[in-house]
Amino acid sequence: MRITGFHVEDVRFPTSRSGAGSDAVNVDPDYSLAYVVLETDDPLGYTGHGFTFTIGRGNEVCAAAIRSLAERVVGSRLSELTHDMAETSRRLTNESQMRWLGPEKGVIHLAAAAILNAVYDLWARSEKKPLWKLFTDMRPQDMVRLVDFRYLLDFLTPDEALEMLDRNWRSRADREREMLDQGYPAYTTSVGWYGYPDDEIRRRVDVAVAEGWTHFKLKVGRNVEQDVRRVALVRDAIGAGRYLMVDANQIWEVPEAIDRIQTLAPYDLYWVEEPTSPDDVRGYAAIAAAVAPVKLAAGEHTQNRIVFKQLLQDRSIGFCQVDACRLAGPGEVLAVQLMAAKAGIPVCPHAGGVGLPEYVQHLAFIDYIAVSASLKDRALEYVEHLHEHFVHPVHVRGGRYQVPAAPGYSAELRRASLEHYRFPDGEAWARDNPSGHLT
Amino acid sequence: MRITGFHVEDVRFPTSRSGAGSDAVNVDPDYSLAYVVLETDDPLGYTGHGFTFTIGRGNEVCAAAIRSLAERVVGSRLSELTHDMAETSRRLTNESQMRWLGPEKGVIHLAAAAILNAVYDLWARSEKKPLWKLFTDMRPQDMVRLVDFRYLLDFLTPDEALEMLDRNWRSRADREREMLDQGYPAYTTSVGWYGYPDDEIRRRVDVAVAEGWTHFKLKVGRNVEQDVRRVALVRDAIGAGRYLMVDANQIWEVPEAIDRIQTLAPYDLYWVEEPTSPDDVRGYAAIAAAVAPVKLAAGEHTQNRIVFKQLLQDRSIGFCQVDACRLAGPGEVLAVQLMAAKAGIPVCPHAGGVGLPEYVQHLAFIDYIAVSASLKDRALEYVEHLHEHFVHPVHVRGGRYQVPAAPGYSAELRRASLEHYRFPDGEAWARDNPSGHLT
Repeated sequence: MRITGFHVEDVRFPTSRSGAGSDAVNVDPDYSLAYVVLETDDPLGYTGHGFTFTIGRGNEVCAAAIRSLAERVVGSRLSELTHDMAETSRRLTNESQMRWLGPEKGVIHLAAAAILNAVYDLWARSEKKPLWKLFTDMRPQDMVRLVDFRYLLDFLTPDEALEMLDRNWRSRADREREMLDQGYPAYTTSVGWYGYPDDEIRRRVDVAVAEGWTHFKLKVGRNVEQDVRRVALVRDAIGAGRYLMVDANQIWEVPEAIDRIQTLAPYDLYWVEEPTSPDDVRGYAAIAAAVAPVKLAAGEHTQNRIVFKQLLQDRSIGFCQVDACRLAGPGEVLAVQLMAAKAGIPVCPHAGGVGLPEYVQHLAFIDYIAVSASLKDRALEYVEHLHEHFVHPVHVRGGRYQVPAAPGYSAELRRASLEHYRFPDGEAWARDNPSGHLT
Repeated sequence: MRITGFHVEDVRFPTSRSGAGSDAVNVDPDYSLAYVVLETDDPLGYTGHGFTFTIGRGNEVCAAAIRSLAERVVGSRLSELTHDMAETSRRLTNESQMRWLGPEKGVIHLAAAAILNAVYDLWARSEKKPLWKLFTDMRPQDMVRLVDFRYLLDFLTPDEALEMLDRNWRSRADREREMLDQGYPAYTTSVGWYGYPDDEIRRRVDVAVAEGWTHFKLKVGRNVEQDVRRVALVRDAIGAGRYLMVDANQIWEVPEAIDRIQTLAPYDLYWVEEPTSPDDVRGYAAIAAAVAPVKLAAGEHTQNRIVFKQLLQDRSIGFCQVDACRLAGPGEVLAVQLMAAKAGIPVCPHAGGVGLPEYVQHLAFIDYIAVSASLKDRALEYVEHLHEHFVHPVHVRGGRYQVPAAPGYSAELRRASLEHYRFPDGEAWARDNPSGHLT
């Protein structure tokens, strides 16, 4: 099977019209996908579907970057690409001229993620397995070869990675059965978006408690009185036995973060997410030291495995929130999962976006079955909207993600959704369509 | 004066055909500009010219990002933009949806740099001053207002910045006269590109010594024997009294960097540039501690002021190499210059690229006259090629940059050059044009 071409789509959902997805920094997101389909010469018509996630304007820049970078896989046999995925990843992230635009960060890395996600999707489809199963059936020595260890060797070597995977190899079938039976624990972000009024948050929390949810996340940041009031409200509604996380979405300076977290700490915070700039590794270490035992969480803007390495070396994050579209494909995610396992820090992937739940369920199953072999302090983010646009949407029951069975990486958009939400010419974006949604 | 529109050009010079500009990582750069012209309604026809620098493929992605972002200044009066440049900068770097693509890094930040460089160029032209003079004539309280202090407050506050600028205010005329008289010390990178054979390096070093150069930079990295041989060769040619820097362009892992630098240290290295990933703040600190008193230098890939802050807080770099196109305009450069002055670390801007010498000369004059007031351990990079394409090229005499006099930020390309090197349709890129150069 050879990759013969590709096409790229700019797909946007008008989520800013409802306030869903809003936080202290991202005030009006339109959840969007820069979406790529890899075409093949396979007589059965196999295609690979991948995307990167953005929040609206600028999605066209990611689409342009995907168009520039995807040429690098056209003409290759799938087997050439999958034979050495670390090298395939470098083909995209270390192109001699384009690496100037990063390296391995921002638009160019988001574009590499979309393409690598599509390659992995195609690989899993061709093996007739869901992506998590493709990984967890792999021998440890083959799994290690998916990882680009560049710039990681002062913290994790291939030999250490192999040893960690080997340790879990014999018991993996038990964990696979457990997951098929029980699913992976989830938490919901859909109760506490920044743009919701207090009574809407209270109503949503009550419904979620009744549905069996145990972890709740609230957006905080701009106004200290509002934050204290809402944190108290949610803590009161969920009681002492459930978990409350807050998310500041990078709004604070380092000294301000320390002050604000200390103000909220009495409400028993499970974690504080993105207290300051995602680039401030040293700032994270300073905040973590000052607010311990409160733990920090970060990852949705952590640009690559090299920044994760530092946060994990310092143990300045207590929760590691890998993002399936910020990192360059499941191989780079695996690098971070391995480093987190070495550091003893739980990986709780970021999924606050369209299609991210569909991706990260695979990553969570891989982490539990093959990498960390632990569910302690793990919970996978869940947002409830927009799943209906995927051919194989996630299934969450009783606060747990159910194991996906369809071959691939669950990334394929329904054709009708793709056409309706295509930007700017889809019907969702027509002037006379106030809600914009597909009916 | 109001900004009424803009146009964007993709301009590329086929430098990879000669090996100039090559190093251990960037093996075949085609020096390129994603170039923007801001148009105005001014009856005198004022325009603002700005660019970001890349090394070839991917320049079209930066051009696309500039097109998406430049809309944010169209329709504004120049005076509205210059009244609060920190806010104007945030208008571009903190756009509520596009910040997801960074924030403040990679393509989207390179695009913001091009646009802000053009706004500053327009501002200086409208004041009929070269950019350095626009800055150094400004009262300290106005200069501080150019800086976006976001995420810097744990290291530098506006009050501290004001105090530093105030301290140099009364003596600035002396330093301005000194610069007009003597110019700013330069060093040359044109002797030691990675792609040059040993005898070509020897020949170039001998010529440069005869011309009066005192600082010499050599590209190193892949092969330890070759590095030792070339470092010895250059040290032998320049003698003990001149300065030798080496540049590894990110090629090493952290432990490998320590080992390799210790091997080269006996040849008396003035600095070691980019030993590892530019994202590895913690790695830089580890290398710096291990190889002291050898000093590290970095900046051409340092993504923004927040990463510079950390390198300066830790003093893990001994030389701060700001880049006029990697950082979002002279305002963000000023933020870094102020932090470096606070840390007592010299700023030696990166200029290894087309148009970068034209930009950084202004930044160096600003640093000396208004910010650090010191020339100790300062030298400004110089590469000798491609100056002929600018309307107001740099003038270097006797190893010193001469003060530019023309209004603006020296960024305007000659029309014939722009048309000849426009990609992909300019004559330079025609199939039957083997050297590609304008004659």
